[in-house]
Order: sequence, then structure tokens, then C-alpha cells
Amino acid sequence: MTQSGFSRIGIVGKADPQGLHAPLTRLLSLLAARNCSTILDPWSALACGQVGVPLNELAEQVDLCVVLGGDGTLLNATRALALHAVPLIGINLGRLGFLTDIPARDLEDRLGQVLDGHYALEDRTLLAARLTRADGGVSEAMALNDVVVAKGARGSMIEVEVFVDGNFVYNLRADGLILATPTGSTAYALSSGGPIVHPGLQALVLTPICPHTLSNRPVVLQQSAQVEMILHKGTGAFASFDVQDQILIEPGDRLNVTCARHSVHLIHPPGYDYFAMLREKLRWGTRF
Amino acid sequence: MTQSGFSRIGIVGKADPQGLHAPLTRLLSLLAARNCSTILDPWSALACGQVGVPLNELAEQVDLCVVLGGDGTLLNATRALALHAVPLIGINLGRLGFLTDIPARDLEDRLGQVLDGHYALEDRTLLAARLTRADGGVSEAMALNDVVVAKGARGSMIEVEVFVDGNFVYNLRADGLILATPTGSTAYALSSGGPIVHPGLQALVLTPICPHTLSNRPVVLQQSAQVEMILHKGTGAFASFDVQDQILIEPGDRLNVTCARHSVHLIHPPGYDYFAMLREKLRWGTRF
Amino acid sequence: MTQSGFSRIGIVGKADPQGLHAPLTRLLSLLAARNCSTILDPWSALACGQVGVPLNELAEQVDLCVVLGGDGTLLNATRALALHAVPLIGINLGRLGFLTDIPARDLEDRLGQVLDGHYALEDRTLLAARLTRADGGVSEAMALNDVVVAKGARGSMIEVEVFVDGNFVYNLRADGLILATPTGSTAYALSSGGPIVHPGLQALVLTPICPHTLSNRPVVLQQSAQVEMILHKGTGAFASFDVQDQILIEPGDRLNVTCARHSVHLIHPPGYDYFAMLREKLRWGTRF
Amino acid sequence: MTQSGFSRIGIVGKADPQGLHAPLTRLLSLLAARNCSTILDPWSALACGQVGVPLNELAEQVDLCVVLGGDGTLLNATRALALHAVPLIGINLGRLGFLTDIPARDLEDRLGQVLDGHYALEDRTLLAARLTRADGGVSEAMALNDVVVAKGARGSMIEVEVFVDGNFVYNLRADGLILATPTGSTAYALSSGGPIVHPGLQALVLTPICPHTLSNRPVVLQQSAQVEMILHKGTGAFASFDVQDQILIEPGDRLNVTCARHSVHLIHPPGYDYFAMLREKLRWGTRF
Repeated sequence: MTQSGFSRIGIVGKADPQGLHAPLTRLLSLLAARNCSTILDPWSALACGQVGVPLNELAEQVDLCVVLGGDGTLLNATRALALHAVPLIGINLGRLGFLTDIPARDLEDRLGQVLDGHYALEDRTLLAARLTRADGGVSEAMALNDVVVAKGARGSMIEVEVFVDGNFVYNLRADGLILATPTGSTAYALSSGGPIVHPGLQALVLTPICPHTLSNRPVVLQQSAQVEMILHKGTGAFASFDVQDQILIEPGDRLNVTCARHSVHLIHPPGYDYFAMLREKLRWGTRF
Repeated sequence: MTQSGFSRIGIVGKADPQGLHAPLTRLLSLLAARNCSTILDPWSALACGQVGVPLNELAEQVDLCVVLGGDGTLLNATRALALHAVPLIGINLGRLGFLTDIPARDLEDRLGQVLDGHYALEDRTLLAARLTRADGGVSEAMALNDVVVAKGARGSMIEVEVFVDGNFVYNLRADGLILATPTGSTAYALSSGGPIVHPGLQALVLTPICPHTLSNRPVVLQQSAQVEMILHKGTGAFASFDVQDQILIEPGDRLNVTCARHSVHLIHPPGYDYFAMLREKLRWGTRF
Repeated sequence: MTQSGFSRIGIVGKADPQGLHAPLTRLLSLLAARNCSTILDPWSALACGQVGVPLNELAEQVDLCVVLGGDGTLLNATRALALHAVPLIGINLGRLGFLTDIPARDLEDRLGQVLDGHYALEDRTLLAARLTRADGGVSEAMALNDVVVAKGARGSMIEVEVFVDGNFVYNLRADGLILATPTGSTAYALSSGGPIVHPGLQALVLTPICPHTLSNRPVVLQQSAQVEMILHKGTGAFASFDVQDQILIEPGDRLNVTCARHSVHLIHPPGYDYFAMLREKLRWGTRF
Repeated sequence: MTQSGFSRIGIVGKADPQGLHAPLTRLLSLLAARNCSTILDPWSALACGQVGVPLNELAEQVDLCVVLGGDGTLLNATRALALHAVPLIGINLGRLGFLTDIPARDLEDRLGQVLDGHYALEDRTLLAARLTRADGGVSEAMALNDVVVAKGARGSMIEVEVFVDGNFVYNLRADGLILATPTGSTAYALSSGGPIVHPGLQALVLTPICPHTLSNRPVVLQQSAQVEMILHKGTGAFASFDVQDQILIEPGDRLNVTCARHSVHLIHPPGYDYFAMLREKLRWGTRF
């Protein structure tokens, strides 16, 4: 048992096996040397010629999940682990991510520190979405970054009616609408003109994508906001969750999104600095 | 024969027949009173219970085309009439458009002035696009507003390589890329953050849609620019022409766009004022 | 004594006396009919040919302050009344404001409702700023909208080092930097590209003005954030508070801004709707 | 006499002498080896302990002007040399500039090529501004980047009436308004939300600074446009030319700006690539 109390470690690999084997081997060595037990997900298992454990089963058997990949890999793992309280830490195999903040070359040092009990735990808000079809059917989904309602390939703009806590906000004519968490504020919403929202702030941010009305600017809301988006017009429109999960929607469908009861527990090694990460990712330049 | 020399008049109606009959009847009365002959397109004919003449045939038989509808109706007619030198004038049946600048209530007055020879003729640039498939197949299209390469519903961002006059510009990671004429600068490109380009300026404007790199700002080019966009990545991506015509594209497909040899001839009644139209459409407010 | 408990009413008038007399007379009639006592500030007194009471004295003697003017009048009154717990209500004499949400024509109805005890009380965050000169001198100021550090007329961009809770954020090269409350998010910060922040959210927003580095996007922070801005370069630069109060600053001067201990108590008549106000002010259009 | 025909070379140094001596010595050696005569401006002369020749005199005696400094140095030289047809080439002593595109380390190679007759000549548009005071006084100025009308330090927004070719455009309430050439489109106008305009395009671009009305977007105009800006309101406002020359203006003052009859002749070494420069300066990233 490590000083951190993390002894049963789940490993989640990126879907593309290229470049996964070497860091995975290093990770397994490190964990073996610390007497940690390990459970591999199907992707990381594949890179070792083994058979892995599906994420929902894996989640019940581990104290910590180490993600080997990029922000996309971590986003996927997050939604699968959302109902379990397993903390996650991300080792980035490519360029540093906003979420996967340990470069592969520092794997042993930084993860070693974490296993020694030197780490910071950070809670990140998750979104819980409920889609109610015009015909009454209901489905649910979660998202760590964002819930998006957007036009399909073949349409032009969509029309969406937006409500917050039951109050009418606006009828939006746009390519789409992004409801993002602070985590998601540096993802798709940033490309669409949204602000950066510090992850310590309990807030949601509503960012239109290419709105017809130029004064339809991003709106930052309380985290407790109950956001309703009703598709009014738009053939082939869809709702998506962290961009990755997508579902076709039709006029009359309504999407209700709130902050989920569970949050995601991110583990950072000592010295994690949100603004330093922004400076690097957004190339804000150096000190005077 | 009218003083303007316009005596054979084509009439193009909007696709949605609602509200078309009354202004069409007024238009026909006006033209009959002036001894103009008229040819109806299929949509306007439908509203009179007649059978119309397809646009490409109609184009060969008229001196002037009157469009009853909105900007979308005029855009469609424009592409169909592009190879003929028929001038167009737009009567707007709803809110005023950027292109259809005569309100229906002023139909008799304003069109009367035009038939009396009091009008301004304005040339608007058209885009000519050639799509070369990775497998060598070729197709062509025209656009008055814009040529767009964009992600499909189910993908995340696309990657496009962009060249101007054979010079590499950038690799764009974005929802898409809009190449617009000055006419199109106040349409989709404006919603995507592009500038307004005065229609008297011979220029094209390249506007990224939600670019990943925040410094990928709109670029205004010479009208003679030869723009090449090669899709590098993006399942389900598509190219579209004036938003209305769309075609699926695949990685390796290349789109070459130049200014077309023909331009569109718009007719404006006396007193047309581009900036006044912008002030109204964009709600720039009144004078001090 | 009214049912609302508001019986001693302070009246604050706009600095420009034009158009003030008529609504002031109506207001005095209404208050007299309700047996409220009234105290006039110097500007509203001037419009009656009387001598008024300075705001800091007035603040100690009233239960409610009625502002007759625009958002600028209310901003001024707010800073003067900040240390007292006097609630404020705004009657707008011109176009509706973001803060002064009762049109003059509805003065009797809406203010009558408030005096009858039908109102909502809303707390708005104030900023407390401390300016420490390079030579050690210290001065303080408050702001309801924003604290701005900006270039002077004769300079080009300024350079500012920014810290949040002691952590380095960035070196900004820009025309300036705005730290706004949610209230201020719809003022100067909105023109500079900042998001709208719902006043129910406890947050601050940092918005650069014309930044040299295009990825220097607005950042939304926790309300508890301690923001430090150190002027590194910039002849003739200045700090301003709600735009109205300004002071020249020099390289080496540092501005420390936090959320003030006191907040501002705004009174709204029944039916106040933040999003309806945004729709009207920003011309977001009507429902489908 | 060199093969390029450039034999009498003017040298213009940056105002800050630091780091100027070494590259200047290298430049003088190169020119001496080519049997070129040299005339130093006051700043470069100072770095050699000599007395220089004012720019307006220097301009009459040289075939080519070599600027040692950054974009600011070249902008200054340009305005001084505007009425003479002397071509300019920029050696950048710091980070590469948009205009000074030869890094100091490549001085001998690149300038050697130019003197051998291998170069491209590029014409850049200049702006000619005439300021007419409310009292009738007139003054004139030129600019290579931009003419700006902006608020002073102590005011809030200014109000400006804008006309193009005598047609009313809008009443702008903003921090200011930038009229830029294509050259200036990557300077202050870019920070204010303006588009990049290719220098081969004959155009001007009007970009508001923090406009009150969010739909007041940048407008690209024909180069022949006659732009008039009348200050309507704004204590302490000023007009500036390339940011560097500034003059206080008052309500009623009018600024008339057109494209100047003379253009600036920039010399580029072989292989100059505008888009490559943009990619580097704006960090657009590398090819896929």
C-alpha cells in the first residue's frame, strides 16, 4: 500500500494504440515497484496483448485511474466513471492537454510523487443532460466539457428556444449553442468566442456558435442554473456530449441540462498551476 | 416597350407559396399596364395555378428578372441565371434583405421607377468553384455569397490545407472555412466573425468558423486570388455553395475557387444606399 | 409608514437638470401621498430651487434611495452610499438602463408597488480597490461596475503584470484591462469582448482591451479572487473606477482589487426579469 | 555601383541605441565592400559617435534606405520619406516584424542579394489625412499603418460621425475608430478585431475600438474611399497617425482621410512570403 492510499490502480489507454506500449510498460513497472495492483481497460490491455476489463467494471475495483492519452481519452473515461468516485490522473502522450497535465517523460517522477501522497485533489463539475423527445421518449447523458445543440451537415442555421430556471432567455438562430462547464470553457466554447472560466468557479457558460444576431454574446450562469434548450427548427440537428457522443434531434425535442450530483475528482501532482497551463496552451508569452 | 428597355420580364417566386399570391397579382397588373410581357418560373406559376418555365429557359427570353421573396430566393435565382446576363431586382416579401431591398408595399412605386429607366446597375462578383475528388472526378458550382468547407454533423473539427495563388497559407483546424464575396460578407461570414466588405471593392474574404487557433483571423484577399482548400481530415465533411447546395467531401478532395468570369447584375431603384441598408439591417441606430 | 417599511426616502437626481423637474414633482407627490419624508440630494434639490444634502449625510437618514437619472447617476450614488446599507431603486429618465429599470412613465405604479411592500431585493457585488504607489503612497476606491487600468491618450499600449491570489496570470500588452463585476459585465467589458455574467453568480471577470496577443481572452474568476495589476510600462496610464473616477498611475504602481465586504442592495418592482432586460437592451429579438 | 543600381545608401537607426552598434558596423562593412556610399541618420550616427543627416535631407541624396530597428523605426522613416521615392528595406534587431522582415543574423546574405539585384519591390499604400478644426485651421499628416480617432485618458467613450464618399455610414459611440491600410491591418486594427488585409489588395479598413453597439463590425472599403470622421463628443480626444504622432482634437473637428498619391516602396529579398510571415508572427502552427 502506498502512502497515498492508492493501491489498486486502473489504467485507461487511448483508442489509437500507436505509441502506447512504451509508456504503458514504464507505468506498469512503476506500479509494480510500489506493490500496486493494476487493472487494464480494453485499450491498454490490447497494447499488451491481453484482454481488458470494461470501464464500468474496472471502476468498482480501483482507487485511482491513470489515463494514458490526451484530453479526449480522459473525457471518455470520465463519463464512464462518473457515477463512481474514482479519482483520475492524466499522462499526456502528445502535446500537453488542458486536462492531462503530466508529460509522458515525467511519468515516474510525477506519478511517484502522487503515490507518495503528494498531490492536490480538484473537483470538476459534470453536466447531466436529459433529452425529452417530442413523442415523450427520454434519454440521458453526462458531459465533463459541454452539451452542444447544433445544426447538421445539410442544414443551415437552427432555431433554439432557451430557458434558464424556467425564464425565457432568447430564441437563438445560429449554427448551434454550447453549454459548457468551466472545464469545457477552454475547449469548443473557446473557439466559439466564449470566455475562459476558472475551474474553481461554480458556473456554467452558454456560448452561441455563429449567431445570426451579433449581440448574442456568451452568458455565464450560476452552476445551479437549470438550462432548457428546445429545438424549434433544424433538419438533421443533433445534440452532443463532450463532442464525442452524438444523437440526432428533431424540432420539438427538449434538452434539460443541470449540474450533476457527482463531480469528477482530478488528481494533480504538486506544483500544478492552472494559469501556467493556460500560458503554455494559449501561448500567452513569457514574463517581462 | 418601357423607357428602361426592359419589356420582357421574368418572375421568380419564393419556394414557400404563402403570401406570394397578392404581391404577384400586383406585380402582374403593373407589368400589364406597362405593356411588358411576362414569363413565370415554376414557383410563381404555381401560385397562379399555372405551369411555369424552368429558370435556365426563362433566362434566355427575358430582359429583367423580378424576384419575389427574400435573399434566399434571389441567391437561388442568381446561380441559375449566372451564365446569362439577365439583370435581377428583388422585392422582399418579409423583412428587408441585404439583397432584396424593395419592400413589397413599395412594389409599384419603386419598380415603376425602374421601368421608367431610373435605376442603378450594380455588378456583384460570383465565385466559380471546381471540386476535384481524390479519385480524379471533377464537379463545378457557382456561388454569389460563399463557398464553405465544413464539418459534418457527426464529426468534430476538420483539418483543411489552404493555399492562395499556390502559396501555402495555413493548416486550419476548425468547424469550417468560408470563402465569401463582398455580397456574402454580410451573410454567414459575418456570423463567423468576418468583416463587412463593401460591394464596390473587388475582394474575397476567407473566414474560419470556430478555429482551434485563436489567431486564425479573417483574411481579405484580392479578387484575383486563386484559393485552394484541401480537406486533410474530417469524416462527413461537406462543401456548400451559398449554404443551399451541398456536397459531401472526403479527405484528399480539393476545392479550387476563383472569381467567375460573369458577374451578377443587380438593379436598384433610385436612392439605393448601401450604408443605409446596413444601418437598418444591423440596427446601427440613428444620427446624433 | 408604508407597508414596505420605507418611510424616509432619499432622492438622488442626475447632474444634468434638463427634464428632471417634471418626474421629480411627480415623485414628491407620490411620496407625500404615502406620508413618506423626503431628503433631496444637491442635484435634485437644485431642480426645485432648494439646497440639498450631500450623499454621505443623506445616506444616514433614509430607508431607501430613489435615483432619477440613468445608469451613470445610479453608479455615482452607489459608490457614495456603499458603506451604508441603504437600498437603491432607479427611475430611468431616458432610455432604459441595465440598472435603472423603471421607465419614468411608470413611476407611480411601480414605485407604488414597492412602497406597498411588493418588491425584490437583489444584492450586487462591489469592488474595493487599493492603489499602492511605487513610492509607497496608498489610496482606495470602490466600484460597482469595474476597475480599469488603461493607456493614456498619448501613449500606445501599456504593459501590465497580472496576478490572481498571488499566482502569476500573464504580462498583458494591451490598451488596458478591465476587472468587472457581473453588474459591470454588460458595461465597458461587453464592448471589449467580455461575456455577460448573470448577477446571481458570485464572480469577477477580467477582460483585456485590444490585447496584442490574440489569445488573451476574457477570464471569469471566483468572486473571492484577489487580483493584482502592476503597471510595468505606460506613460500617462490611469486607473479608473466605474469609468467616472480616474487617477493617473505610473510604472511600478500596483492596484489590488477584491470584492468589497459591503454589497449594493438594489430594489426591483415585481416582475423584474434580468433576461427580459437583456433582450430589450441588446435587441435579441422576439419569440418565434 | 552595385548590380541593383543602389549605390548611395541611407541608414536609419532605431531611437534606442542599445544593440545598434554591432549590426551597424556589419552593415557599414558590407556596404564599403560593395563600394556603396552611405549617409547616416541622426540615430545611427549617434551610435558611431558621428553627427547624422536629418531624414528629409538624407532622402534627397540616396537610392535606398536601410532601416535598422523594428516596425516602429520603419514606420517613422516612412512618413519622413513619403514624398521622396526612396525605397526602404528593414533589418530587424529584435523579434521579426511585419514590415522589417530580415533578421539581423542574415544581414550580409539577404542585403547582399538585394544589392546584387535580386529583390522584389512592393508598393504599400499611404494614408493622407487632413484635419480641419472647428475654427477653420487646417493641418495635414500621413500614415503607413493607420489614422486613429480615440478617446483621451480622462473621458469615457467618444462619439464620431462617419462618412464615406459623402455618404453617412454611422454615428459611432466607442473608444475610437481606426482607419487602416492593408499594412496597418496587422497592427492596432488586428488587436481591435479587424481582419487581416492582404497588402496586394487596394483597400482600407475601418475598425471601431470597443464599440457600444455590438454590430458595429469592421468595414473594408475601396482604396479610393474618401473617409470623413467628425468628432461629435469627447473631451480630450485625439487623432493619431501610426500611433506615434498625436494631436488633441475637439468636438466639431473633422478628419478627412484618403489614400495618398505617393506609395511606399518596400524592398524584399528573394523568397519573401507574406503568408509565411503571418504564420510566424501569429503562431499559426506548422503544416500537417
